[in-house]
Amino acid sequence: MSMEYEQELSVFDADELLDLLDNKRYADFRHRVNELNPVDVAEFFDELADERQPSVFRLLDKDIAAEIFAELDADVQETLIVAMSDRELRVMLDELFLDDAVDMLEEMPSNVVKRILKNATPETRAQINRFLAYPEDSAGSVMTAEFIELRKSMTCAQAVDTIRRTGVDKETVYVAYVTDPGRHLEGVIRLQDLLFAQPDEILEDMMDTNIVCATTHDDRESVAATISKYDLLALPVVDKEQRLVGIVTVDDAIDVLQEEATADIEMMAAITPTEKAYLKTSVFETFKSRIPWLLLLMISATFTGAIITHYEAALGTWTILTAFMPMLMGTGGNAGSQSSIAIIRSLSLGEIEPRDVFRVLFKEFRVSLICGVVMGVATFAKVLLIDLRLDLSQMLVAVVVSVSLVLTVILAKVIGTVLPLAAKRIGLDPAVMASPFITTLVDALSLMLYFEVASAALGV
Amino acid sequence: MSMEYEQELSVFDADELLDLLDNKRYADFRHRVNELNPVDVAEFFDELADERQPSVFRLLDKDIAAEIFAELDADVQETLIVAMSDRELRVMLDELFLDDAVDMLEEMPSNVVKRILKNATPETRAQINRFLAYPEDSAGSVMTAEFIELRKSMTCAQAVDTIRRTGVDKETVYVAYVTDPGRHLEGVIRLQDLLFAQPDEILEDMMDTNIVCATTHDDRESVAATISKYDLLALPVVDKEQRLVGIVTVDDAIDVLQEEATADIEMMAAITPTEKAYLKTSVFETFKSRIPWLLLLMISATFTGAIITHYEAALGTWTILTAFMPMLMGTGGNAGSQSSIAIIRSLSLGEIEPRDVFRVLFKEFRVSLICGVVMGVATFAKVLLIDLRLDLSQMLVAVVVSVSLVLTVILAKVIGTVLPLAAKRIGLDPAVMASPFITTLVDALSLMLYFEVASAALGV
Repeated sequence: MSMEYEQELSVFDADELLDLLDNKRYADFRHRVNELNPVDVAEFFDELADERQPSVFRLLDKDIAAEIFAELDADVQETLIVAMSDRELRVMLDELFLDDAVDMLEEMPSNVVKRILKNATPETRAQINRFLAYPEDSAGSVMTAEFIELRKSMTCAQAVDTIRRTGVDKETVYVAYVTDPGRHLEGVIRLQDLLFAQPDEILEDMMDTNIVCATTHDDRESVAATISKYDLLALPVVDKEQRLVGIVTVDDAIDVLQEEATADIEMMAAITPTEKAYLKTSVFETFKSRIPWLLLLMISATFTGAIITHYEAALGTWTILTAFMPMLMGTGGNAGSQSSIAIIRSLSLGEIEPRDVFRVLFKEFRVSLICGVVMGVATFAKVLLIDLRLDLSQMLVAVVVSVSLVLTVILAKVIGTVLPLAAKRIGLDPAVMASPFITTLVDALSLMLYFEVASAALGV
Repeated sequence: MSMEYEQELSVFDADELLDLLDNKRYADFRHRVNELNPVDVAEFFDELADERQPSVFRLLDKDIAAEIFAELDADVQETLIVAMSDRELRVMLDELFLDDAVDMLEEMPSNVVKRILKNATPETRAQINRFLAYPEDSAGSVMTAEFIELRKSMTCAQAVDTIRRTGVDKETVYVAYVTDPGRHLEGVIRLQDLLFAQPDEILEDMMDTNIVCATTHDDRESVAATISKYDLLALPVVDKEQRLVGIVTVDDAIDVLQEEATADIEMMAAITPTEKAYLKTSVFETFKSRIPWLLLLMISATFTGAIITHYEAALGTWTILTAFMPMLMGTGGNAGSQSSIAIIRSLSLGEIEPRDVFRVLFKEFRVSLICGVVMGVATFAKVLLIDLRLDLSQMLVAVVVSVSLVLTVILAKVIGTVLPLAAKRIGLDPAVMASPFITTLVDALSLMLYFEVASAALGV
C-alpha cells in the first residue's frame, strides 16, 4: 500500500530526494516530485543549498515547477529568478497564477521586478500593474484574477462544458460567476448546483442572486471574516463600477486571518508586526521591530518615576507604602489588559462594534466592581493578618491599600475598554491600544490614585 | 436587479422580516427566508423575542430549518427544542448534520440531551454517542461523518453518478474518498479530477494515494493547521484501525484556528479562555474567567513588594534609586513579553519547534544584547543630562541604572524564550507562559538585579 499517513508526511523524507540527486537519478527525482505535495517540495527547496537550487529547479516539469515556485520563500524565489534565462522566466510567468506572481513581486528588489515586468506579456504586465496598485491590506491585494465566468442564458450542460474547457487554469472550479457582457456580476453558481440540476436547466433560473461580495478597496480582514461567516469557498470582488475583477478564495482567507491574528498578538506585545516567519527574520530586523516600543515605553515609564519622586515626601514618613506599589501597579496593568485584549479580539472577530460602547462599558464596569471588591477584601485581610501589626495606624494602611486597589481595578478596566473602542471609532487599529500602552498609563494613574488616597487618609 | 452587495447584506434587513411576521404574511416570510443566507436568518432568530422563536421557527421549510438551526446560539436552540413535539424533534435530528447535532448536544442541559437521544434513531444515537466520546479539542470532536465514499474499481462516470445520488446529504461533494470494503482509506478523488477526466477512466488509476490525513485523537489545532498548510477543502480522519470515520472541512478548520488564536490571546491577557462570544458571556462568567489570574498575580506581586522591603535599608540612603524602579520593571516586563509572545505565536503557527531551543535562544540573546545596549546608552545619557547633577556619585547612579537595564533586558528575553519552549516540551500549552506570568517573574528578578548592582557599586 503506497498510502502515507500524516505522521509520515510531516517527517517528509528530504534525504530520499537528496539521495536521488546525489546519485544523479534525475528522472526518478522528477517522478517522485510529481507524486509529492508541492508544499512539501517547496520546503525541501527552502532547505537546499543556494547554489544547488537553480540546477535542481530546472529538473522539474514546468507546470509542477510553477506550483512549487509559488510556495517558496521570497529569498529562494529571488535566487531562482536571478539564475533564470529570459526564456525560462517567461515560461514561469505564463504558468504562475496572477496573485502568486504579484505576491512574489512585492518581495523582490526593484531590479528583479524590472526584469520580470520586461519579460511579461503586455497583457500580464498590465494586470500585474493593476494588482500592484491596490492598497496594501485591501481585497484587491489578496484577490486572484483567475475565475470562471458564465452567462445567464447558458444551460446547465453548457456551463459544465465551459467549466471543463476553461477550468484548468482557474483558482477554483467549484464556484462560477454569471456576468453580463459588461462584466457586471449577476449571480453565483456552485458546481454542486450544476451537478444536481437537469442538463437543460437555464442558469438564470438556478443561480444565486443573493450575492455576498466585496469591493477592491474593502479591508482584507473583513473579506476573510465574511468568507468565514458564510462558509464560502470564494468571495467575488467588484470594482467601483461593480464589474467583477477577481475572487478571494478560502485558502487565502485563512492566511489573512492567521496573519491578522499574528499582527494583533504582536501589537499586544509591543512588537511592530512583520509578515516574515520567526526564524526567517534576521536579528537586526527583529531588533528593529522591538526597540522603538521599548524606548517609547521606557520614556513613558519615567513619568511614573517622576510621580514617585513627586510624592517622595509622603514615602519618607510611610516607607511601608512603597512595598505595596508593585502589587497595585501590577494588578492595575493586568486588570486593564484583560479588558483591552478582550475588547480588541471581540472587535477583530466582529462580535462587537464601536457603537456597542455603552453596553460594553456597563458590562466591564460591573465585572471590575466585583473583581475589585473581591481583591480589595482579600488584600485587606492579607495586609492586616500577615503584613502588619494590629493597631489603628496599620489598619489605616490596610484600608488605604484596599481602597486604592478597588479604584485601580475599576479605573484600569474602564480605560482598557474605552481606548480600543475609541481607536476603532477614529479608524485606528484597536490593537495599538493593547497591554503595553494600557499598562504604562494605568501604572501612572494607579500610583497617583494610591498616593492621593494615602494623603487623604493618613494626612501626609 | 435583486443583487445585494456586502455593504447591504451586513445591515441585514431584519425589519423587513419582522414586518412580514407582524402582518401575518407567513407565506411571504417563508419565501423571503428561502432566498436569504441561513447565517443571516440565524442572526435574526438570535435577536427575536424568546416567546416568538418557536412559532416563527415552525413557519420554515424543514430543510432550511435545520440549516438555520445549526447556526443558532445555544440558548435559542434550547428554547426551540423545549418547545418542539417529539415528532418535530425527530424530523429536525434527521435533517441535521451529525457534527452540528453533536455541537448542539455539548451545550444542552442533561434533561434536554436525554430527550434528544431518546428521539434519535438507534443508529443516529450510536453515532452521536461515539462522537461525544472523542476527547475535547481532538480531530474526532470537530469532524463530520457525512462524506462521500467511492470504490477504486469504479469508472469516473460511475463515481459522478454516485456523487449525484448520495451527495445531497454530504458536507462536501468536492472531495470523495476511496475505501475498501473494510472502510480503510485507499485514495482521495477531487470532483475537479472527475470533471477533467474521461468517463471510462478507473478511479484506481487517477486517485491521489499520497494522502494527508489525521487520526481521531490528533489535536484539532494541528488538523486545522494541516488543512491550511496544504490548502485542502477537507481532511480525512481515520481511527486506530485506519478506517475512515470522518472528515474535517475547511470551514470548520477556520473556526478552530480562530478559536485557538482567541484562546492564546486570552491566555496572554491572563483570562481563562471561554468559547462564548463577548456579549453572550454574562458578567459573572466574565468575572470567573478573570479573577483567579488577578488574585494569583496579585499574590506573586507581593513577593516583589517583599524584595523592596528587604532592600529598604539601601533605599533609605539612596531614595533616588526608587524613581528608576518603575522604568526598570516596566522595561523588563515589556522586553520579556516581546520574546515570549513571539515564541508562543511561532509555536502555534508551527514555525518553530521545542528542538529549535538553542537556535532561538541564540537569536533572542543577540537581539536582547543590541536592545539592552541601545537602551542602556539612552538611559545613561538621559539620567546624566536630565535627571541628575553632574558629580561623581550621581554618575555612579547613572551607571548602576544603565547596567541594571542592560542585564534586565537580557534576562527578560532569555526567560521569555525559555519558558514557553519548556512548557511546550513538557506538554503544556505555551500560552500559559505569556506576558502576565513573565512580567511578574521578571519584575522580581529585575528588582533583585538592580539592588544587587546598586549595593556593589554604591557600597550600600
